[in-house]
Amino acid sequence: MDYDKLALELHKQYKGKITTKLRDESTLDKTKLSAYYTPGVAAVSRAIADDASLLPVYTWTNNLVAVISDGSAVLGLGNIGPHGSMPVMEGKALLFKHFAGIDSVPIILDVHTPDEIVATVKAIAPSFGAINLEDIAAPQCFEIEERLKAELDIPVFHDDQHGTAVVTLAGLINAAKITNRSLSDSKFVVVGAGAAGTAIMKLLKLYGVGQILAVDSKGIVSSNRTDLNEAKQLLLEHVDGSVDGSLADALEGADVFIGVSQPDLLNAELIGRMAKDPIVFAMANPKPEIMPDVAKAAGVAVMATGRSDFPNQVNNAIAFPGIFRGALDNGVKKITDDHKIAAAKVIASLVDKPSADMIIPPVFDEGLVPAIANVIR
Amino acid sequence: MDYDKLALELHKQYKGKITTKLRDESTLDKTKLSAYYTPGVAAVSRAIADDASLLPVYTWTNNLVAVISDGSAVLGLGNIGPHGSMPVMEGKALLFKHFAGIDSVPIILDVHTPDEIVATVKAIAPSFGAINLEDIAAPQCFEIEERLKAELDIPVFHDDQHGTAVVTLAGLINAAKITNRSLSDSKFVVVGAGAAGTAIMKLLKLYGVGQILAVDSKGIVSSNRTDLNEAKQLLLEHVDGSVDGSLADALEGADVFIGVSQPDLLNAELIGRMAKDPIVFAMANPKPEIMPDVAKAAGVAVMATGRSDFPNQVNNAIAFPGIFRGALDNGVKKITDDHKIAAAKVIASLVDKPSADMIIPPVFDEGLVPAIANVIR
Repeated sequence: MDYDKLALELHKQYKGKITTKLRDESTLDKTKLSAYYTPGVAAVSRAIADDASLLPVYTWTNNLVAVISDGSAVLGLGNIGPHGSMPVMEGKALLFKHFAGIDSVPIILDVHTPDEIVATVKAIAPSFGAINLEDIAAPQCFEIEERLKAELDIPVFHDDQHGTAVVTLAGLINAAKITNRSLSDSKFVVVGAGAAGTAIMKLLKLYGVGQILAVDSKGIVSSNRTDLNEAKQLLLEHVDGSVDGSLADALEGADVFIGVSQPDLLNAELIGRMAKDPIVFAMANPKPEIMPDVAKAAGVAVMATGRSDFPNQVNNAIAFPGIFRGALDNGVKKITDDHKIAAAKVIASLVDKPSADMIIPPVFDEGLVPAIANVIR
Repeated sequence: MDYDKLALELHKQYKGKITTKLRDESTLDKTKLSAYYTPGVAAVSRAIADDASLLPVYTWTNNLVAVISDGSAVLGLGNIGPHGSMPVMEGKALLFKHFAGIDSVPIILDVHTPDEIVATVKAIAPSFGAINLEDIAAPQCFEIEERLKAELDIPVFHDDQHGTAVVTLAGLINAAKITNRSLSDSKFVVVGAGAAGTAIMKLLKLYGVGQILAVDSKGIVSSNRTDLNEAKQLLLEHVDGSVDGSLADALEGADVFIGVSQPDLLNAELIGRMAKDPIVFAMANPKPEIMPDVAKAAGVAVMATGRSDFPNQVNNAIAFPGIFRGALDNGVKKITDDHKIAAAKVIASLVDKPSADMIIPPVFDEGLVPAIANVIR
């Protein structure tokens, strides 16, 4: 299937992916117009001006998520700027609507420093019920999300970090069952210390897994390294920073490989260094760190990728619709680490009988959104 | 009719007024998802990153207006802040959709200085096809609109100023016909030098009317006054600033009274000072400067108000849907003075046989949007 061609055709044909409509679809006569706009609307405005907590009672903010990006780390495309990021953000809005019935507006930002992005998002934040940060480059994304979470009273969630981390943990919970492992005794090697990799390591640590080694393009991220940026120095709080060496060194006896890095990083020789029946999550997009058939042939017991055309797709869309559905419906102001772990557990539990080819529920599983929403409270 | 009660009920029942839906309403299967989101969407992103002019070809920005307010001058309510302004902005989004099929997103701003507002709107501007500024207090609104018009390459239109001015001029064109006047020989008194009043005077001057006297709470705005703020000093370029005096002085022999000020400002005695068969546009909301029955009894020939329960409602919704429809459809980047005058003329022309009770077409006239859109090019 030539998805590029189909994508260009469909986007042109429909002139985009989302549109607005009126909630009240009955005839809008003069009386209704006088209630929805002047003079009646003044009573609603006065009520909210007196008590801002009524905003979601009387306006669409109760069901509204802003999908916000500056276009600095878009899909596999990198820093393509705000305009180029719009189709992805509008696509996310489509996913919000399709999977969770959530109204969503793509907001692309023509500013790029953390200070400017934080100031802009704070300025427009009253317009929304929650904020989904998307495709903002690391390490800036960490500071931006932390500051916005601290300063706003609506949920702020950087999906590239936490959505990926939640679905990864869900898959690992089931992968451990199949391979008769305890995650708390397992050794993890995570390659890629960007937004997703960092969030995965933090969440694994919080969940209570065994040793975690972070690997970047220079090797194991250790406290002996002198070339670490601030974000990677902070990462040392979450991983075992006492070990030096290469990726090959890191993989010795490892139970789990998690890649959010680049194609073809892993091979049969490297897998041979891992423990028996290893688990491999090769999530580089669109081409994974190792193809599933090669990995299986090399002895990998459970394999996941980011792709929809292989089993076990680690797809953010499994997690974020339910997480935001729950946050909006249950009045949650902060999406916490406990929420993320609870979401991962409930996603894992939705796979009736985990098997090597079914550790993660399909994104079309209609039970996902209500089950996840139920634990975000 | 208790519009307050109905408004509170309807807003609560429907949880706001607008919602989103997918443009492509056919089944969203795995193939379509792969075209609307990853991996196919990357081709669309690349195309736009290479050529930003493709943004409206492939995304919803071709039909999208942001309705932006800081809540500093909301309806008759004044500075009630962003949260309280949301129902009005969402109401405007409803009008955009209902009258012109335009997608619209309310953006309420938690910043209030011109610098902050300009910076925020510029930062989010790539997200939209056009910007409707709304309910921002004078005199800041003038600077904000001017700077945004100069710095952005999409239409920026402060409807409180120009929408009101366009519909007022349309009504005056027909009122002049009925009273056998030439607007170019007529004397105008405009009371209220805020956003709407200032824009009305500027547009009247551009259209080429006779003498215009501006009146504020201190009397005629003249060059002898020492208490004028910068906006009112600039206003002197558009009005006759050589005359001093009170409102009563100003009205001597005036052909037209235009009020965007406060209830009960005008009375029979003051109307008695005006020329024979005077024209009165009393647009204070919700209570006009004089009630129509009182004005008519005092000899007013043509009377307009801002209210839907009297004839000749000067309603912005007559103008802005068509103006934005035209700007979006015809690729107009700046809405100019010529556009405003053309819109006023075409609105006036839609009244087949103007009469004292029919100088402005009703807002429900389905011919309005296409006719106005046609002259915005």
